[in-house]
Amino acid sequence: MNITIAKSELLAALQDAAHAISPNSPQASLRGIKVEAKENRLVITGSDADISIRRVLEKDDINNLNIIEEGEILVESRYLLEIVRKIDAEQIQVEVIDGSLTKFSGGSAVFKINGMRADDYPSIDFTKPSSSVSLTAAELLSIIEQTAFAASAKDTRPVLTGVNFKLENGILSCTATDSYRLAKKTMPFASADSFNITIPAKSLNEVRGTMLGDLNETITISLNDKKAQFESKDMLLQTRLLDGGYPETDRLIPKEFKYVLSVNRNDLIHAIDRTTFIKNDNMTINRLSLSEGEIILSNRSQEIGESTETLAGTFTGEPLEISFAGNYVMSAARALRGNELKISFTGEMKPFIMTCEEDQTIIQLVLPVRTYN
Amino acid sequence: MNITIAKSELLAALQDAAHAISPNSPQASLRGIKVEAKENRLVITGSDADISIRRVLEKDDINNLNIIEEGEILVESRYLLEIVRKIDAEQIQVEVIDGSLTKFSGGSAVFKINGMRADDYPSIDFTKPSSSVSLTAAELLSIIEQTAFAASAKDTRPVLTGVNFKLENGILSCTATDSYRLAKKTMPFASADSFNITIPAKSLNEVRGTMLGDLNETITISLNDKKAQFESKDMLLQTRLLDGGYPETDRLIPKEFKYVLSVNRNDLIHAIDRTTFIKNDNMTINRLSLSEGEIILSNRSQEIGESTETLAGTFTGEPLEISFAGNYVMSAARALRGNELKISFTGEMKPFIMTCEEDQTIIQLVLPVRTYN
Repeated sequence: MNITIAKSELLAALQDAAHAISPNSPQASLRGIKVEAKENRLVITGSDADISIRRVLEKDDINNLNIIEEGEILVESRYLLEIVRKIDAEQIQVEVIDGSLTKFSGGSAVFKINGMRADDYPSIDFTKPSSSVSLTAAELLSIIEQTAFAASAKDTRPVLTGVNFKLENGILSCTATDSYRLAKKTMPFASADSFNITIPAKSLNEVRGTMLGDLNETITISLNDKKAQFESKDMLLQTRLLDGGYPETDRLIPKEFKYVLSVNRNDLIHAIDRTTFIKNDNMTINRLSLSEGEIILSNRSQEIGESTETLAGTFTGEPLEISFAGNYVMSAARALRGNELKISFTGEMKPFIMTCEEDQTIIQLVLPVRTYN
Repeated sequence: MNITIAKSELLAALQDAAHAISPNSPQASLRGIKVEAKENRLVITGSDADISIRRVLEKDDINNLNIIEEGEILVESRYLLEIVRKIDAEQIQVEVIDGSLTKFSGGSAVFKINGMRADDYPSIDFTKPSSSVSLTAAELLSIIEQTAFAASAKDTRPVLTGVNFKLENGILSCTATDSYRLAKKTMPFASADSFNITIPAKSLNEVRGTMLGDLNETITISLNDKKAQFESKDMLLQTRLLDGGYPETDRLIPKEFKYVLSVNRNDLIHAIDRTTFIKNDNMTINRLSLSEGEIILSNRSQEIGESTETLAGTFTGEPLEISFAGNYVMSAARALRGNELKISFTGEMKPFIMTCEEDQTIIQLVLPVRTYN
């Protein structure tokens, strides 16, 4: 391989591909980024076996790509990024000298780096699955931001570390739960297709971090029962899916409520946030004492002390005392868009749901916790 | 104690005091900030036993201090900062309710926090030593920035973890060395006084981080053989000194040179910085190959690869090859102010010195390393 290319375009593509890489992967070749030059284009791939990212640079006036000799290289991603970031030149030359020894030159600097054998790189099947749906980047971003945080961080039930995407009868529903809370987004979706897959939350967060910069762009998701491919104009991110049936969650969501609280979203977030340092067993548990006359948020730890704060808002129902993990309610409130939150309860130890008028596609459910003070 | 005070002023003073605190100190009382209200002023103290910071807030129109009842509190610094930072009010009330239980209120929030007994706080002697010198913040900043980085990070010879300040015959010299490199700043100083003390580099970095925001301010340093006090308009930082005689370093600095290199400072810094990922045993060793025709910086690692870069500049002397720790030369170059560096050598394995025309007060010395390639 022997190419020249604009530094800034090469760097951007390498940075995108590097998102998929685990720098400490036990499999050496996966610590590398693969760069292939052929047929007037550069194909740049990074992968951690679960997530793979591919950037294709077609020769154009911005990237100024010139392929002097076709070929491929596989170089440890951190060295590659460091060299391309720091070379002080508009144009960079990358040339294989001997075997996997690769020369990078630009400005007055010349690097000769021991690469790896490109044919040691696992063959990643980028074949496009036949079933596909399209969303705007804005729609996909709101799905990810409003649900992915609620997925489980623990591997004990792997399927819960993902977001379930289910398309049925023209309705797309996206659900995440760690069994203590649940986020569900439901939107009409003009398609006769149907699927039921679970995408790792980690992969969705990579999609958010790399592909959703331009909110008007169309993102195509192609999928089968093994993998999902997210594709934008010049980038492709492919992720494996989580195996196992996703639990039926609809029956967990209560439909009738005896108590309803309306409260300003930011007031609630800030009031909880002020108390996060008051922890018991490393958790912040807040308590709401609700009556039609008063809404009081409190928090108490034997060791540290206590807080109380009166919130403005309205409450209808018999007086109710309910305790919950503060960070769960804060993240749920952050994921709801709108100024006023409606929190609907059915009882002291029953799950409650949080919604807002302005965006009826999203519902957040939180399980209360038992306290003894 | 019972006071009200402007949140922003209280927060700033607490943040300053917190700089002295080790949040995980085994001595519980030192994890706290002490606040004393008496005689129309608030005295705020933080300490880790080595460094102590005191802020005094005299009642004025900005801090709006109102002392309703004199007294003192001692509260874990991280709780104190968290509460005062997040309370949503211009004015905060702090009141001792019962023993060390302390109430903080502002806006709609009320906190009752378990403080510690203020009389458990170590008594810190803030008596001012009689000997003192004054510098501008700008002068003190340049002393710290140009020397402190060269102090040793290891405790094997404690006195080397500090910067030696020596005043003699109207000359102030400030020296730091970790025995592989040395930084020395020498400036005329109109004083008949004399002293020879070593201040921990860590303390000087705290001084830099907290007291030197206004470069025109005068900083008074009062000292005896046990401690140094840095005092600005409204803040006092006191540090213990390092025991033990500081080594005589003047004889280490060569006076005559056989080889002299002139090179652009930024070019040298960037060229070394580009190669920092090429490590041997976790160190980046750069090699300069110097002749009157060519200045080449190179770097080589069996595992990773190599770099070479030609630098613009002038060299006089017989051809010379010399190797050194890249980060030592980079930090020394950064600490020299000026566009052109002069690097003077006496031989392949002899210390070399780095200086610049624009600022003759500062000299940097670096020991070469032996390499076998």
